[in-house]
Amino acid sequence: MESIDILIKNGHILTIDRKMHIFENNSIAVKDGKIIEISKTEFLRKKYSAKKTIDAKSKIVMPGFINAHTHLPMTYFRGLADDLHLQDWLENYIWPAEIKFISEEFVYSASLHGAAELIKNGITMFNDMYFFPMQTAKAATKVGIRAIVGQGIVDFPNSNYKDPKQALNNVVKYQNEFADNELIEFAIAPHSIYSCCSQTLKITAESAHKNNMLLHIHISETKKEVEDCLKQYHKRPIKYLNDIGFLDNNVVIAHGIWVDEEELNILKEKDISVVITTESNLKLASGFMPIKKYIEKGINLCLGTDGVASNNNLSILEEMDFTAKIHKAYNQNPSIIPAYKVVKMATINSAQAFKKQEELGSLKVGKKADIILIDTNKLEILPMYNVYSHLVYTISSNAICDVIINGKLIMENRKLLTVDEDEIIDKANYYKRKILTK
Amino acid sequence: MESIDILIKNGHILTIDRKMHIFENNSIAVKDGKIIEISKTEFLRKKYSAKKTIDAKSKIVMPGFINAHTHLPMTYFRGLADDLHLQDWLENYIWPAEIKFISEEFVYSASLHGAAELIKNGITMFNDMYFFPMQTAKAATKVGIRAIVGQGIVDFPNSNYKDPKQALNNVVKYQNEFADNELIEFAIAPHSIYSCCSQTLKITAESAHKNNMLLHIHISETKKEVEDCLKQYHKRPIKYLNDIGFLDNNVVIAHGIWVDEEELNILKEKDISVVITTESNLKLASGFMPIKKYIEKGINLCLGTDGVASNNNLSILEEMDFTAKIHKAYNQNPSIIPAYKVVKMATINSAQAFKKQEELGSLKVGKKADIILIDTNKLEILPMYNVYSHLVYTISSNAICDVIINGKLIMENRKLLTVDEDEIIDKANYYKRKILTK
Repeated sequence: MESIDILIKNGHILTIDRKMHIFENNSIAVKDGKIIEISKTEFLRKKYSAKKTIDAKSKIVMPGFINAHTHLPMTYFRGLADDLHLQDWLENYIWPAEIKFISEEFVYSASLHGAAELIKNGITMFNDMYFFPMQTAKAATKVGIRAIVGQGIVDFPNSNYKDPKQALNNVVKYQNEFADNELIEFAIAPHSIYSCCSQTLKITAESAHKNNMLLHIHISETKKEVEDCLKQYHKRPIKYLNDIGFLDNNVVIAHGIWVDEEELNILKEKDISVVITTESNLKLASGFMPIKKYIEKGINLCLGTDGVASNNNLSILEEMDFTAKIHKAYNQNPSIIPAYKVVKMATINSAQAFKKQEELGSLKVGKKADIILIDTNKLEILPMYNVYSHLVYTISSNAICDVIINGKLIMENRKLLTVDEDEIIDKANYYKRKILTK
Repeated sequence: MESIDILIKNGHILTIDRKMHIFENNSIAVKDGKIIEISKTEFLRKKYSAKKTIDAKSKIVMPGFINAHTHLPMTYFRGLADDLHLQDWLENYIWPAEIKFISEEFVYSASLHGAAELIKNGITMFNDMYFFPMQTAKAATKVGIRAIVGQGIVDFPNSNYKDPKQALNNVVKYQNEFADNELIEFAIAPHSIYSCCSQTLKITAESAHKNNMLLHIHISETKKEVEDCLKQYHKRPIKYLNDIGFLDNNVVIAHGIWVDEEELNILKEKDISVVITTESNLKLASGFMPIKKYIEKGINLCLGTDGVASNNNLSILEEMDFTAKIHKAYNQNPSIIPAYKVVKMATINSAQAFKKQEELGSLKVGKKADIILIDTNKLEILPMYNVYSHLVYTISSNAICDVIINGKLIMENRKLLTVDEDEIIDKANYYKRKILTK
């Protein structure tokens, strides 16, 4: 018998492959971080000797969710200020708090908290944007979660670097230091067109190309952003970014709410994916994304929770529920994005956004073993007729019981195996007191 | 020392009283189904000897949620058909399924399941509309949840009664039979203006007046309903209902999405509350309620989950989250309904809708002891700066640990004390098989 690391047996397996195959009562063999076989339970039990066997009876087994846009170090700002417009919230609450508190220690602790919370929400990979990305990378490594950690870039003074150039040098250095780390990649993440000048945007794009890195930016989040851009540059944000040579197929865009036909054509032409962040956009009253137009253009759409400060949680299942529901009413069409398409947005589409669809986002032999198990044997979930409908409209994160990343069990029966949850709670309370007393 | 039933000690008490008092580290004494004192823990511990003491350290203690519009017997239709318009969903999926399956046994089992699920969601009272209300009343009694059970009335044939008159006679009989039951009241619930003719609506209103009962109806849920009403009666639905003498202060309306100024004035003048059912309205693409106009008129707004078949869960916390967020974006105003107002919608406003604000909906000495405890000591919840923000945007139902109704502990550490959860799960799977094989 061949020795393997994990055998997941008797599961209701959603592959999210091209044909959306579902295998009832099947098993998955995991070895050296990868899926090496998916087949009948009886067959695999005879073939392999597993170090760890997980019984997935009454459980959904599916690819882990990919959170395509978040800011983990903001976890300690959860609910610090609410019911405000983006600019008011940023300029009068979030940025002042950041100036006071952001340090390496703060970013590490808040990222550790956030990464642990992602696991509780079945998220096996996240794409982040913030300061001190090295600390977020260390926290992700400690938790055992896959990450693309973006070095946030702004023109205004901050405690992380003296100017954008220094930040760009730093992130290339981090990328080299983490070259052997299978879970972590770094990215360059200019915050927005209103916090970075054209020159800064240009050098970020150059550096990203030169170093083969992802470019991650907030764009067209609010009507005001577009109006200001029209005033300053006499063109709309995506057109402006394109004209300065920023846009290419290494770019991932968050929000993309206020876009016109020409901008959509640019995104399509450049093969750029857009991260939908429904809850944050609703909560900050930023607007409704024109999803119908995106779908018609065939632009790849994926999902992100945004930071907890504007959400105020990291549940991707909730994000799926909001996204599926609001666009039905907004477009007066309940079929506009059926449930299974929303599940794809949070898995394979996100993998595609980061050009990782060959290794992540679906369950297939040879792919990396980023797998979650969801316990459906609860009265809040039963009866279940259609598993995609249930994922989007019924199931909440507390049903996610086990999480495997890169072939390693990270959460078992909702208990995190890589970090001490009580310590994380104590740290959160410590920083809360600090924030409140300053 | 005076003997009491329950002492809840060391809680973070949200009273939801007129001044929204919050008492930190306080206790509540419960006796004979009522709150008899709220004070410092040390003081109450010396004064009372409690049969049961609940430690509420790190817990929010607040009035139970009131679900102001639902259809519990539809629990077994959860996710049976999705991503469809209301009329398509009703006429081609739900009504045919109902004709095949609805029986006394079905309604009892599905209601028991739904009532248990309500408890898991911190809901201590619900307002229902369906057939065989006696069975829903029995199930609610078994679970120990407070309910107003509406006899659903439609003109078309069904297995519950031969004609609306018979249904009206039945519900009056039930009301008398349950006269001594502290938890249950019956109501008259004509389904809608498109499933009941004017004559039926008139006799339901007469019977409700004569027997001092609540009238509960779906109204102005879709644009089509309004257009059809204009065609048939040459006036809009609320105007039509008013002109036939249906509307009075014993009426509670679900939905109320497509309303004009004149109709809002009628609702205000008649002191009629409106139940917001955001998730259902979004999912069925019915539309966005004009909440700004309702608020400007000063109409009492409360919250309901609708049935699970159109939601697809019974989480009132999720309903709060959706309601708070979508109206911000829809009105381009993030302050339009701040978090604390949404919490009121799910508690005291709902109590007021049913004219029970003197006994339910807030924590006050003399009021009924319908109390829930929410454990905030979880990393998904911390840090917490503002408890109302957290209730609406962060906390999900799995944090609700204990539920007390009418002074009786119904759920403890998320375990239901009045029903067998495994039996409920088995029944759900049994009915699922039945529904799928027919």
